[in-house]
Amino acid sequence: MKKSLILLLIFFSIGSINAQDKMIVRLTEIEIDSNFLKEYIEILKEESSASVEIEPGVISIFPMFEKDNPTQIRILEIYVNKEAYESHLKTPHFQKYKSTTLNMVKALRLIDMSVIDPATMKEIFSKLKS
Amino acid sequence: MKKSLILLLIFFSIGSINAQDKMIVRLTEIEIDSNFLKEYIEILKEESSASVEIEPGVISIFPMFEKDNPTQIRILEIYVNKEAYESHLKTPHFQKYKSTTLNMVKALRLIDMSVIDPATMKEIFSKLKS
Repeated sequence: MKKSLILLLIFFSIGSINAQDKMIVRLTEIEIDSNFLKEYIEILKEESSASVEIEPGVISIFPMFEKDNPTQIRILEIYVNKEAYESHLKTPHFQKYKSTTLNMVKALRLIDMSVIDPATMKEIFSKLKS
Repeated sequence: MKKSLILLLIFFSIGSINAQDKMIVRLTEIEIDSNFLKEYIEILKEESSASVEIEPGVISIFPMFEKDNPTQIRILEIYVNKEAYESHLKTPHFQKYKSTTLNMVKALRLIDMSVIDPATMKEIFSKLKS
């Protein structure tokens, strides 16, 4: 409950320049060895849901794959700030994901993104909230 | 208010296989002519915020650009179903965006995505909701 309150406060300040500047938004592109795809997806699913559930600083770890090319994974990751991201890297669920999938990953690209319209993000969540 | 209620109901059924199957999730990759970048971003911003604000079937039009390569635009688009997407294409704000940016776009790739864990999406929104 306390965590939710903190997140809510953080969320409502997303529109401000400060919070926006501190947020880390990343689009991760991963190519998976097709021999391990099913196994990889199970591990990723476990890791992403644990992160969003347990970590207050993780706003989104939203994993997808290309419909026509399922070995191409894309993850939209949003952290409230750098500290939240660094803390995420140290969690047991991330460490487990990293070590068990190391040999399944053929290519990895971490792309730092800038959000073009933070108000849109706020609007998306508030539509679902009201 | 009525729109919000409908959206909320749609949202809470995202976990079900039916709603998930019907949702359209797309990652759009766009390369913009650097001469028009500033102008393009203003037009995109106007279009995305109008879509999320006005259209109940648009869950997300979330535009970003690569920090190290700002002419590389990425948009996460989520529509409740095919009809919502088709209706979006007919709106005046999308038509205006399409016609005014046609000469600014150097490359365009529309990639249909599958969501790996719809529960994560629900969790993200519910964290911000509670």
